[in-house]
Amino acid sequence: MNKAWEQLVERVSELEDIVSAIKLASYDQEVFMPPKGGPARAKILATMSAIAHDRLKNPAIGEILLELEHDDSLTPLQGASVRVLRRDFDKATKLPEKLVRELAELEAQAYQAWTQARPQNDFSQLQPFLERMIELKKQQADTIGWTEERYDALLDDFEPGMLTSEVEVMFGELEAKLRPIVQPIIDAAGERPALLSLSYDRPTQEEFSAWLVGRVGFDFEGGRLDTSPHPFTSEVSQGDVRQTIRSEETAIMMSIYSGMHETGHALYEQGIPDEFRRLPVGQVPSLGMHESQSRLWENQVGRSRPFSEFILAHLAERFPEQLRGVGTEEFYRAVNHPSRSLIRVAADELTYNLHVALRFELEVAMFRDELEVKDLPGAWNEATEKWVGITPPSDADGVLQDMHWSIGAFGYFPTYSLGTLYAAALFDRAKKDLGNLNDELREGDTSRVLGWLQDNFYSQGYLYPAKELMTKILGEPPTATPFVNYLRSKYEDLYGIKL
Amino acid sequence: MNKAWEQLVERVSELEDIVSAIKLASYDQEVFMPPKGGPARAKILATMSAIAHDRLKNPAIGEILLELEHDDSLTPLQGASVRVLRRDFDKATKLPEKLVRELAELEAQAYQAWTQARPQNDFSQLQPFLERMIELKKQQADTIGWTEERYDALLDDFEPGMLTSEVEVMFGELEAKLRPIVQPIIDAAGERPALLSLSYDRPTQEEFSAWLVGRVGFDFEGGRLDTSPHPFTSEVSQGDVRQTIRSEETAIMMSIYSGMHETGHALYEQGIPDEFRRLPVGQVPSLGMHESQSRLWENQVGRSRPFSEFILAHLAERFPEQLRGVGTEEFYRAVNHPSRSLIRVAADELTYNLHVALRFELEVAMFRDELEVKDLPGAWNEATEKWVGITPPSDADGVLQDMHWSIGAFGYFPTYSLGTLYAAALFDRAKKDLGNLNDELREGDTSRVLGWLQDNFYSQGYLYPAKELMTKILGEPPTATPFVNYLRSKYEDLYGIKL
Repeated sequence: MNKAWEQLVERVSELEDIVSAIKLASYDQEVFMPPKGGPARAKILATMSAIAHDRLKNPAIGEILLELEHDDSLTPLQGASVRVLRRDFDKATKLPEKLVRELAELEAQAYQAWTQARPQNDFSQLQPFLERMIELKKQQADTIGWTEERYDALLDDFEPGMLTSEVEVMFGELEAKLRPIVQPIIDAAGERPALLSLSYDRPTQEEFSAWLVGRVGFDFEGGRLDTSPHPFTSEVSQGDVRQTIRSEETAIMMSIYSGMHETGHALYEQGIPDEFRRLPVGQVPSLGMHESQSRLWENQVGRSRPFSEFILAHLAERFPEQLRGVGTEEFYRAVNHPSRSLIRVAADELTYNLHVALRFELEVAMFRDELEVKDLPGAWNEATEKWVGITPPSDADGVLQDMHWSIGAFGYFPTYSLGTLYAAALFDRAKKDLGNLNDELREGDTSRVLGWLQDNFYSQGYLYPAKELMTKILGEPPTATPFVNYLRSKYEDLYGIKL
Repeated sequence: MNKAWEQLVERVSELEDIVSAIKLASYDQEVFMPPKGGPARAKILATMSAIAHDRLKNPAIGEILLELEHDDSLTPLQGASVRVLRRDFDKATKLPEKLVRELAELEAQAYQAWTQARPQNDFSQLQPFLERMIELKKQQADTIGWTEERYDALLDDFEPGMLTSEVEVMFGELEAKLRPIVQPIIDAAGERPALLSLSYDRPTQEEFSAWLVGRVGFDFEGGRLDTSPHPFTSEVSQGDVRQTIRSEETAIMMSIYSGMHETGHALYEQGIPDEFRRLPVGQVPSLGMHESQSRLWENQVGRSRPFSEFILAHLAERFPEQLRGVGTEEFYRAVNHPSRSLIRVAADELTYNLHVALRFELEVAMFRDELEVKDLPGAWNEATEKWVGITPPSDADGVLQDMHWSIGAFGYFPTYSLGTLYAAALFDRAKKDLGNLNDELREGDTSRVLGWLQDNFYSQGYLYPAKELMTKILGEPPTATPFVNYLRSKYEDLYGIKL
């Protein structure tokens, strides 16, 4: 065995352990921690993150990488691990300490400003922090380097290798094909079905969600399902993948579909091969890839006609009073009911990506120096009118609705929609390979879908960059076409309309 | 501000953060972790412990300590912190790496052997590991150094500053005064009350326990209460003190008194002053001191006549069927029902300390080279007959019943009984200061007791070594007398006997 490789394994294993402890402390913070533990927890996380960062930046890792990069006897797994670690090492070492510290401080201040600006509907409180944030993020992009334009460097943090111009092509297609069909679909959908707002006992909702995610394949021996205000998934370590759901008494779909969504993330993490774990190649290649699985399980599977029939059958056993006499078609329409929303996180499958596209457009304009922060509220409202078709009545429900920009998460939003596009493309491909899935999904049997994803997708870990893996699986680079076609045919069928 | 002190604070704060992450990962392992997370968790804990140990051993800490030890301008808090850190630093640096590693490996092997030896009732499987363990522990004691005899060094790990000879005096008094009264009390107690073994719904038991510990003062804003097979308490960080209870359907007292016991530990941790936290002086001075609080709240308060009346009143609301017609005296007798038991962890307040005393006697004999490991099973049975008054029918229920020796925890058992003795002495002192507590305890009002402990005990943190603090509070060094007197008068009163 190669000595440099052994050294690499030892160092990354140790790093993996430290990062696991951080992920556990973060999960616990959201789910279990008592309120008074907050200040100490912030210190624990800061200390642990500094330790992890220091170890990643260790010059010895640079030397090991150099040696392995000149070694042509590496296996594909080793080669990919070296490539991934090089990326992480360079990102950790290239940025000057001063910039890292200034960014961390600014993020804390700007987030604090946002928490006050939003309830007071006062963008001017956030503006100076956001202006400085854009300056620092530009510095960061220029220090790290980029391919065609600055924004590439920001995107690369979340979707490695993806270029702004490529996203523009995909989102352009999305815009061109999606915007014209939104109004006809909403007109056809009509009133919000009453069953969506009835009262459903929360413990029973949560029991159902836990049963459902187990049914589609989440392994409770190697994970947990808890509740938290903002559902999320965390791979704490090998054999310990945790997800949370949220339930509200008068929003039955929230617990069901937050569970299906997070289970998509969780199945992906549980599907990474054991031998990849504790190595750089055990990571998921990009946030878009991760989101593709949450969207695939939530929407492509979970909101399909046959699977919604399965859900109804078992949900009605638990809520006979509320769901007595509800037919399969009525329920299928309810789980897919579209409407225009001011708020991204409340948006449905039809309009969600329009919210993302508008953020992407504004972000890119700022990093191309075509839009100044002071003009952001107006630009936001114009873009919302253009993309979503409504105008926010206030900045609180407009430019101030998300906290992401306050913590410097530029380049992050597009991955939500990339995931959606990937999901549709992957499910299309799976159906071509597997044939008709309707009968099995109607029985809640997702084993062939999971098996296909396991074999083609989860088992690959980070052997290939996202775009390369997608292209291998699809036989062509991903586009917006499968997603738009999926939506078109779903709603044509659902409401008997021609789009 | 003193520069060396600032450096010390910075280093110990960072260490505190790392230790908090370890404590959280350990708590989670017992309470929340899914089964498949076990192997990775062991690695995480090993890596994190190594990091903490490395940082504690850093020579820079030795230099800072030297400087502060020659500084006569330190405040009491600073002086105590330097003294405590010196202890920890010396213990971490004195032992050679080789011995530390060999001990860690042997502990894992011996524990593994114990898990097989006990079900097979075969001491010979454990014997060679235990022989090596005694050898290494002798080396450890000799390397660290001791005052009067080797066992002092082992005791010092858990009860800093306490000497074997001092424990012998206390346990000698315990033996002389306790053994003669055990049989008369057991005879007077008669049959086990039937209400102890009725069936009680577990969720209701757990709800009651949570209510009860909140009532006596556990702060849920700064802590949690969960369930686990072995109840324990962990101070994860400032503002985050967690305890677990255990419930069994046909053992109602288990959930109630495991909750009162752990709450004693938790109240102590929650009572350490905020300004001591993140400093060495924020630790509890000894395991015996810690145990004094669990015993005080479980027994002195929890099993008192007035408080048992309070428990009954509220328990009967939840379990009207099982507790209908049960009188306060009947219930008081039930919570105090004594019996001889083979197993320490199943023993009651009357006989528990006899189990501890026999282990102490055997441990000391081994470290004085007066007893060989091969003769341990016979010696165990003789000692059990002598101390507890029964002979184990098998090694599984005898010398193999506890796992502690397999993991090298010699010097640990005595702290259980020291805690019991301290508890009785402290509660005696409190009653002298506070006067009659019966009326308030009958109402479940423990605020004056908690206030007294807070002012005199919890607020002191580790400003003084255990014995010094006890002596300050009691006005004299602790002895076994208050505990024996407490038991004597309790059972005389309970059964109308003269002991």
